[in-house]
Amino acid sequence: MPETLSSTSVGLVTPQVARFDTPLMLACGRELPAFELVYETYGTLNETASNAVLICHALSGHHHAAGYHHVDDRKPGWWDAHIGPGKSIDTRRFFVISVNNLGGCHGSTGPSSENPATGRIWGPDFPLMTVTDWVHSQAMLADRLGIQQFAAVVGGSLGGMQVLQWAMTLPERVANATVIAATPRLSAQNIAFNEVARQAIRSDPEFFDGWYSEHQTLPRQGLRLARMVGHITYLSEHSMGARFGRDLRTDSLNYGYDVEFEVESYLRYQGDTFSTRFDANTYLLMTKALDYFDPAGEHDDNLPQALSTASCRFLVVSFSTDWRFAPARSRELVDALLRAGKHVSYANIDSPHGHDAFLLPNERYEAVLGGFMTRIANDVERAAGDHA
Amino acid sequence: MPETLSSTSVGLVTPQVARFDTPLMLACGRELPAFELVYETYGTLNETASNAVLICHALSGHHHAAGYHHVDDRKPGWWDAHIGPGKSIDTRRFFVISVNNLGGCHGSTGPSSENPATGRIWGPDFPLMTVTDWVHSQAMLADRLGIQQFAAVVGGSLGGMQVLQWAMTLPERVANATVIAATPRLSAQNIAFNEVARQAIRSDPEFFDGWYSEHQTLPRQGLRLARMVGHITYLSEHSMGARFGRDLRTDSLNYGYDVEFEVESYLRYQGDTFSTRFDANTYLLMTKALDYFDPAGEHDDNLPQALSTASCRFLVVSFSTDWRFAPARSRELVDALLRAGKHVSYANIDSPHGHDAFLLPNERYEAVLGGFMTRIANDVERAAGDHA
Repeated sequence: MPETLSSTSVGLVTPQVARFDTPLMLACGRELPAFELVYETYGTLNETASNAVLICHALSGHHHAAGYHHVDDRKPGWWDAHIGPGKSIDTRRFFVISVNNLGGCHGSTGPSSENPATGRIWGPDFPLMTVTDWVHSQAMLADRLGIQQFAAVVGGSLGGMQVLQWAMTLPERVANATVIAATPRLSAQNIAFNEVARQAIRSDPEFFDGWYSEHQTLPRQGLRLARMVGHITYLSEHSMGARFGRDLRTDSLNYGYDVEFEVESYLRYQGDTFSTRFDANTYLLMTKALDYFDPAGEHDDNLPQALSTASCRFLVVSFSTDWRFAPARSRELVDALLRAGKHVSYANIDSPHGHDAFLLPNERYEAVLGGFMTRIANDVERAAGDHA
Repeated sequence: MPETLSSTSVGLVTPQVARFDTPLMLACGRELPAFELVYETYGTLNETASNAVLICHALSGHHHAAGYHHVDDRKPGWWDAHIGPGKSIDTRRFFVISVNNLGGCHGSTGPSSENPATGRIWGPDFPLMTVTDWVHSQAMLADRLGIQQFAAVVGGSLGGMQVLQWAMTLPERVANATVIAATPRLSAQNIAFNEVARQAIRSDPEFFDGWYSEHQTLPRQGLRLARMVGHITYLSEHSMGARFGRDLRTDSLNYGYDVEFEVESYLRYQGDTFSTRFDANTYLLMTKALDYFDPAGEHDDNLPQALSTASCRFLVVSFSTDWRFAPARSRELVDALLRAGKHVSYANIDSPHGHDAFLLPNERYEAVLGGFMTRIANDVERAAGDHA
């Protein structure tokens, strides 16, 4: 944490835990008997509970979206660029909730939690989650917090898919939906990259069919490779080129397999740090949730029909150099929303940063997201005023 | 081999071996004391030895470019679509030579060969090869065969880089150069994908620092992952989508990690077959040769200057959906060739097949390549007639 905190930071935050003893029926047909969700909130819920915004996280994300946990944290939450007093998602006006998804590895019930039926950790026995399961569990948290309808549900990448699912599954509980850098379904190439990541983890001899923690080990190499290949898809070819080019780490080529190019060093570092701080079973589960998401598939590939239940206003945002979920995938979604007669705004933001752009500051992105959220805050406050 | 051989097949072919006891000085500073090259030839060398065409292979290629080795071979050589009587590279007119590169695993001296200094196999001690080293070794084979100048040097991908290097390093020995689906240098993203492949192989516990064969094992999982990630980059997003889409192998999702999507099954199959038929040390070496190739880098990033020594005519071909070495990379090369005052033709071929398109039949590709080669054959035969 910086010595002098910016006035646009939410400052120090403390995660909270909500425990649910009501069973959750899952898409896979299994039931989660009880579970905990860890979450953070920023800002204050108004009297009518009409100013709540739900933040949905992506593959390797978690509940810590903004601010700092400790004064000695070097980095703030993953979406601190966009959440805070005066930021796009303005915590002076909104009550923001950010939750770690079920199956995660940051405090919510997941593969590393104890399976009450066995007394062992769940490990690979933890049921596979779908985006719909997450929506239902997040709705239980909203009930607990007394929130009937979210002013907005917001998310990027896999988070954007949760936003879409919220709008379709629980339309009466979503006033506005912001779908960023997402896609209505993964392409064969997207699935292929996920499958390489899964095979890297599952073929690591330290994986032990997912029981690595009972063997006091971790499938580090597998997770490291999965992250390396994932990371390439998060950056654009241009941003990798601009950042690393063909720059050497060494004075000259060493004609061997130690690090030579800067980009090799960067990838190895990304893989190494990730391999000890993220859970392999969670990574597997998250990639499957991505692969499975396909609302149109449940409606004879008719996306407008799948979206027909939604009643909220939509903002869809894509980034020009995102090749993981390219702008064309967002346009598919926008076209389907329009064909379904929905109210939708769309912006394709010029950015050199590929898929990762959704996490980064960007003037036009902030103008678009901030503008949409400001209109919502105005509506909320006007309605609250009428109500008062 | 089909029961009735097409009139456009070169038919049964037998690889030959050339042994060289002259030491080869390598770019890395080491010397290869003696070596063998395995190669195939198709067609007949004319009296003036002026109709020879050299085929350079790509990362996982070899000398077997056309025809069949045995009557029970199911598949012909890797470039059979383009080499044969009446094909783009017409063996009725050209004497075609296709050689397995040094460091390969199909018969030429490489990591699996015996190191004369130790009596053990070379393994990871085999020196790293560069594209320039290959050109010099191929030139020694040309000397052996009595070929002073090639009518054309032709290659795709890493093969195209060898073509470029031939034109720059030994300009008097190349009359025409055909550079297909290549790039004048790898991008940071290209290097990143290669690095993931290398890390997959090198982190496999069965790799044993490259001494796997002395441990009677193979780094199968690593090579399998390397091939899977490579394969994604060879296909276009569109061709993967058209071929596999989100089709399931199973009647329904199994909510587990067995194969569910067709594209998963395809990738696993590609990885599995490759992991037992290709040598891991060779794969590592080939990716390094790709990474190192950078003629402009030796001339203060001035590509036209690097190309200035060339005196041949160039044909450059790219494919519309190739994202490994995108059309823009070929246009960079074409621009540099034009700025260097060279004679160059360029075609960007519409194809849905990504980088792999260079291996496949395609009417317009055949017209462009065949047209260029026909002009060369006409020149060769006219000159031979004048000479007679």
